[in-house]
Amino acid sequence: MAGNLKVFRAYRSRMNKRIAEIEHLGIRRFFNLDTMAYKNGALDARTKELLGLVASCVLRCNDCIDYHIIQCIDAGWKDEELYDALNVALIVSGSIFVPHLRHAVETIDELRKERKKKQK
Amino acid sequence: MAGNLKVFRAYRSRMNKRIAEIEHLGIRRFFNLDTMAYKNGALDARTKELLGLVASCVLRCNDCIDYHIIQCIDAGWKDEELYDALNVALIVSGSIFVPHLRHAVETIDELRKERKKKQK
Amino acid sequence: MAGNLKVFRAYRSRMNKRIAEIEHLGIRRFFNLDTMAYKNGALDARTKELLGLVASCVLRCNDCIDYHIIQCIDAGWKDEELYDALNVALIVSGSIFVPHLRHAVETIDELRKERKKKQK
Amino acid sequence: MAGNLKVFRAYRSRMNKRIAEIEHLGIRRFFNLDTMAYKNGALDARTKELLGLVASCVLRCNDCIDYHIIQCIDAGWKDEELYDALNVALIVSGSIFVPHLRHAVETIDELRKERKKKQK
Amino acid sequence: MAGNLKVFRAYRSRMNKRIAEIEHLGIRRFFNLDTMAYKNGALDARTKELLGLVASCVLRCNDCIDYHIIQCIDAGWKDEELYDALNVALIVSGSIFVPHLRHAVETIDELRKERKKKQK
Amino acid sequence: MAGNLKVFRAYRSRMNKRIAEIEHLGIRRFFNLDTMAYKNGALDARTKELLGLVASCVLRCNDCIDYHIIQCIDAGWKDEELYDALNVALIVSGSIFVPHLRHAVETIDELRKERKKKQK
Repeated sequence: MAGNLKVFRAYRSRMNKRIAEIEHLGIRRFFNLDTMAYKNGALDARTKELLGLVASCVLRCNDCIDYHIIQCIDAGWKDEELYDALNVALIVSGSIFVPHLRHAVETIDELRKERKKKQK
Repeated sequence: MAGNLKVFRAYRSRMNKRIAEIEHLGIRRFFNLDTMAYKNGALDARTKELLGLVASCVLRCNDCIDYHIIQCIDAGWKDEELYDALNVALIVSGSIFVPHLRHAVETIDELRKERKKKQK
Repeated sequence: MAGNLKVFRAYRSRMNKRIAEIEHLGIRRFFNLDTMAYKNGALDARTKELLGLVASCVLRCNDCIDYHIIQCIDAGWKDEELYDALNVALIVSGSIFVPHLRHAVETIDELRKERKKKQK
Repeated sequence: MAGNLKVFRAYRSRMNKRIAEIEHLGIRRFFNLDTMAYKNGALDARTKELLGLVASCVLRCNDCIDYHIIQCIDAGWKDEELYDALNVALIVSGSIFVPHLRHAVETIDELRKERKKKQK
Repeated sequence: MAGNLKVFRAYRSRMNKRIAEIEHLGIRRFFNLDTMAYKNGALDARTKELLGLVASCVLRCNDCIDYHIIQCIDAGWKDEELYDALNVALIVSGSIFVPHLRHAVETIDELRKERKKKQK
Repeated sequence: MAGNLKVFRAYRSRMNKRIAEIEHLGIRRFFNLDTMAYKNGALDARTKELLGLVASCVLRCNDCIDYHIIQCIDAGWKDEELYDALNVALIVSGSIFVPHLRHAVETIDELRKERKKKQK
């Protein structure tokens, strides 16, 4: 049921390359703008990734949730902080978010396992 | 076009009281849980209000946007930081958010004016 | 903040007539199909109106909420039953529904007042 | 294309246990409130499950649809009644619901097969 | 109930100027990209405005609907063609779109009246 | 990650037959109305398929996107034109559409490969 993270990352990377080949100026610029939106600005990148995660949660997109969880963990957010953000998403968007909450928690767990393996 | 903030606050306050009179246990508990979700926890209240704002933006609810902008300004977020959060909402949810961006900016401006008046 | 019910009904009635003048076969059939969906069938009309109300709530459309509350009260649903349905909508769709919950409760109150006046 | 119901139930059960381990007070209370919302109240549990199904349909969440179909069939709703509820969801939310209608009908069929097996 | 088009245009113009003053690079670039998306490209501008209208319809944003109807009429689309596009939006997004269909038809009527006045 | 188009078409066809067996008048009429909405009218069928594609994109439904891409390619739209339509969807609905953009581009590529095979 849960997306295998390796499969997701390989697919995402492959298709982003494919989309880059299309050479549609509007699409390319949108991707650049998207990347730019999460860089340090008036808010730091770390906070923005958390905003991106909650936005993805309430709009109920598992791929976006996975992407922003990866970014959030890279940015140093701890599990308890991520759970607290997921709780805000849960109260805002209600039980329709619950299947995505399951997915999000599973992804956090998978990423933590990956990190432990690498540290050994 | 923009909601007058005074009217919104009066209406919100009046109807919340009316809803409290209904004495539906589930509804009352939901309101408590909603309040609790934005208190200091693993994340601080200040960050959570910003999460609430972005969630309200991408779900495109002007009343919720107004409420969270009020909370965010009370929590000390500066205009530039709010604009940066609104920009994340804009990139995530696209041009369909633009009318709500107009509303949000107008609300921020109204609140700053209110504050200036009070300081005099 | 709340729509005046008289204004809503007059506007709805006027514009439905205007749309009927357009004579677009697809649109006309859609309106017929919509009416038909709430008639007695395997489920009775009364239950279907409640389904229509909850669907309108979680999709957050105030005009649709008003329309179905009118229909639900005509169908004999009591306030406590409507509140219980609104509570299901609240738990499913979260706090983003709260502004619409305010609107729904206000509409129920307005309709009860109207009925009391007529009975005198 | 359709989720295997056994897989869904096992995953759902496993992840709900995992989420319970997290011990986030807000999340735990939300789950309790969610359970409570479908208990007998002013409306009976049976009607509320049907409301939950239609809400899940118009918000287009297959996992939620599956969960509420299971609950609805346990509550004694017949296929014709479920189809009539799905028709309300279809008219409210349009052809974008059609892929979820396919999923819902498949889940109903799977559950009926399961029940027949058990009765033998 | 319907937005007065003059009020909408004045508000939209005033707030777009206000947003331009903010000088947030991401927001400014997004507005440019948005304008660019409707220019002649592989598809002509005329077709793209119709796409923008239908997108605004199914996402149920009255301000966006008004904006794209103005653009569509400027691009030469006739009423019957717009109704046909609105019918696609209606079948895709269902009866939850009906209040926005009313709004759209009213806006088309208002714009036609404006044009007649100017021609005199 | 991408749906195999053969599997999707077989599933869609099988379940549409199954739904036809249900003999619910409302559901059957809805399917007819849906088919009718994309026939030549004030707008030609070709343009309407493109409208259907963009509507499916901004409502973020992969099955609907696949269906309308098939129809669009059958109607003679070229890849560059489809990309331009996808770009409108991207600007309207933002980065939350990106996973569906990946899916759409993959489906276009799969369909082109299928066509090349048939021509040999």
